Amino acid sequence: MKMLQGNIVNKTIEAEEIENYIGQKIKIHGSIYKIRKMSGFAFVLLRTKRKIVQCVYNEEFSQFDLNLLKEESSVYVTANVVKEERSKTGWELRILEAKVLSMPQEELPIVINNKIVDTSMENLLDFRPITLRNEKERAIFKLQEGICNGFRTFLLGQKFTEIHTPKIVYAGAEGGANIFKLDYFGKEAYLAQSPQFYKQMMVGVFERVFEIAPVFRAEKHDTSRHLNEYTSVDFEMGYIESFEDIMEMETKMLQFIMDYLQETYSYELELLKVALPDVAEIPSIKFKEAKELISKEYKREIKDFDDFEPEEEKLLSKIIEKNTGSHFVFVTHYPSKKRPFYAKEDRNNQEETLSFDLLFRGLEITTGGQRIHDYNEQVEKMKKRQMTVELFESYLMMHKYGMPPHGGLGLGLERFTIKLLNQDNVRLATLFPRDIHRVTP
Amino acid sequence: MKMLQGNIVNKTIEAEEIENYIGQKIKIHGSIYKIRKMSGFAFVLLRTKRKIVQCVYNEEFSQFDLNLLKEESSVYVTANVVKEERSKTGWELRILEAKVLSMPQEELPIVINNKIVDTSMENLLDFRPITLRNEKERAIFKLQEGICNGFRTFLLGQKFTEIHTPKIVYAGAEGGANIFKLDYFGKEAYLAQSPQFYKQMMVGVFERVFEIAPVFRAEKHDTSRHLNEYTSVDFEMGYIESFEDIMEMETKMLQFIMDYLQETYSYELELLKVALPDVAEIPSIKFKEAKELISKEYKREIKDFDDFEPEEEKLLSKIIEKNTGSHFVFVTHYPSKKRPFYAKEDRNNQEETLSFDLLFRGLEITTGGQRIHDYNEQVEKMKKRQMTVELFESYLMMHKYGMPPHGGLGLGLERFTIKLLNQDNVRLATLFPRDIHRVTP
Repeated sequence: MKMLQGNIVNKTIEAEEIENYIGQKIKIHGSIYKIRKMSGFAFVLLRTKRKIVQCVYNEEFSQFDLNLLKEESSVYVTANVVKEERSKTGWELRILEAKVLSMPQEELPIVINNKIVDTSMENLLDFRPITLRNEKERAIFKLQEGICNGFRTFLLGQKFTEIHTPKIVYAGAEGGANIFKLDYFGKEAYLAQSPQFYKQMMVGVFERVFEIAPVFRAEKHDTSRHLNEYTSVDFEMGYIESFEDIMEMETKMLQFIMDYLQETYSYELELLKVALPDVAEIPSIKFKEAKELISKEYKREIKDFDDFEPEEEKLLSKIIEKNTGSHFVFVTHYPSKKRPFYAKEDRNNQEETLSFDLLFRGLEITTGGQRIHDYNEQVEKMKKRQMTVELFESYLMMHKYGMPPHGGLGLGLERFTIKLLNQDNVRLATLFPRDIHRVTP
Repeated sequence: MKMLQGNIVNKTIEAEEIENYIGQKIKIHGSIYKIRKMSGFAFVLLRTKRKIVQCVYNEEFSQFDLNLLKEESSVYVTANVVKEERSKTGWELRILEAKVLSMPQEELPIVINNKIVDTSMENLLDFRPITLRNEKERAIFKLQEGICNGFRTFLLGQKFTEIHTPKIVYAGAEGGANIFKLDYFGKEAYLAQSPQFYKQMMVGVFERVFEIAPVFRAEKHDTSRHLNEYTSVDFEMGYIESFEDIMEMETKMLQFIMDYLQETYSYELELLKVALPDVAEIPSIKFKEAKELISKEYKREIKDFDDFEPEEEKLLSKIIEKNTGSHFVFVTHYPSKKRPFYAKEDRNNQEETLSFDLLFRGLEITTGGQRIHDYNEQVEKMKKRQMTVELFESYLMMHKYGMPPHGGLGLGLERFTIKLLNQDNVRLATLFPRDIHRVTP
């Protein structure tokens, strides 16, 4: 019987280690990203796990025919690391030998190895398995890894417990028609619009919990900011004294993430030319006041007193940036009728909820607030909304048997990412986006 | 306009900090887990984020009526930390004052504050929002957090990139009837049985990727080891020389996780009486040889030459433990006809695949293997299986335009957790399990 001992043999070095081998011969592996023929020599760009490495091919030292290499073939390369002060890296990689592991079957239908993939959004997404191989396209998702990691590290540090809640559910948390239905062994079930019910239940267990997982919205909107499946960063915390405790926690989380990205993902930040926003202070304004401010500043008539138009969110962000310099703004006290049945109302004004959204560069990236923790208060509000209380028996169990005051938020990972990049279409920050027209690849 | 600066004010201390306050007055908060009345005094057990803290109520120093406290109410407590050498902790917490934040509406229908929740599996799951409040029940999921964290930390350290792939998909990776169907805006779509297609595509992008996310199986099995939704730990890596590279990586991952849990989750390990298995070496045996070994050792007739019966997995684990001491065993070279269309076959024997399962204490917790990376080889195998190649156009794109040799695995988080606990029913390691009969809570 064979015994495995966890022996990981690295026969090649990582791109990040090359600088330690100046004057030596190394082995490295990767995919041929680009071959740039010059007069008398060629640059061969190797795509490694995180970085593109430039190698030099020259018949003087390269002991093979350059025509054996093809873009998108996988290779092992033997090379000399030669000191070269004119190079940005301080070294030059001279290929001696190359061993081809695999070859593409056909030439790529789209050019993916220029600075950007210069094609339509449709092509970019239709050919996702290969367009993601572009240096900048993939850097977006390396950065997104960093964002998740940063959030997670921060929340664990604040003693939140990471949980996994079901995505097949018996009732929607957000209500409404925007829910995917499923045949579950003859019963009707749904895809979770958010982990709301479950993260609240888990506050009764761990006090502070978070989850980073997919959520599903059957919204028919066909806009640059809607996805039908996205990754939600959700946290929920007990023993709050005010819903502002949640906003303070999010502010601190954002401060942490900016430092974390700067420290750990500077390579991607530079490649994508991301200037991280200042989050030392985030202004907060009441919904009503925000409405009036926008109306006054831009001489717009207020048409909808209960919600923002998307255009208004953009205008508000502009005003706030002009007045305070902040790219973020909290909007609080949303009207009760626009918030879900579990939102806690302001004791002084039942028409308003102790809730907030966070806007980032004109886009809502977070919705949060304090929840009702008292059983009678919750049941009453459901009845007022003509909901069938019996259907929510297992949700209301936590209220019935005791819950601390609590609240939380959900942050859309793709929306946060795209705004960090200072771009608009959330599809660009989604590996394989799902929208009303798209379920492939 | 108000400005938020990320001010997190902790008015209370954490349970883990109490020992630093001997001789001082502290504030702490939590839920009343249990009130144990003795003669002349009472123990009040407080459930905090991770630990249960024992406080002492005595009219001599407690300035309130004990009847004001109720199990499962949320409270702020002021207490003196008094040195007490007879106590395991070295201190005693004397309650001076208590401020009740919230009260349960009704008494609990199930006793949750004994050593174990002594009830049927059905009740345990029907009342999940409250049975999870039991000290040991919840510890399982704190430990599970540690398992995820350990896996993630290890994989990031090995330069894997964490990804998020869609759960609404256009085709199943595993094939067969065990797939949930969905109406996606008038089109038919499915719930992902695994991130297989996407993690392979992402090997073409980042070389090494992983995902920890839900997967969905519409299996009608009603057993202790099946869930219809579970959390899958998936990784996939390029530039492998053999499928054993994947097994070595998993072995090293398991070695890492055991050390990590011992270091970081010893509180839960002790509470749950978990003895971590030795993973210095994991034996590996070929499927055929394993079949023969079981047959010989237990004088069983081999009925199914292509797959294990669940009973055989248990017997194999027993034999391996007896012979080597290992609680884990890799089984390799599964018959081709029982493995998916993307499994790479052994060059020397096309009937066998370069694949493996990992059994842990009698239960299969991992399936993995090398995948086909060559376009023609993949198309040919699909044709041989009478698959409609055109339906897989976007999957085959990566093969067509170049892929390195690669492979990976999926590990069932709940199965791994339950076996670590040396128990049998995966439902016990799932916060809110989904099985053929259960979609609530």
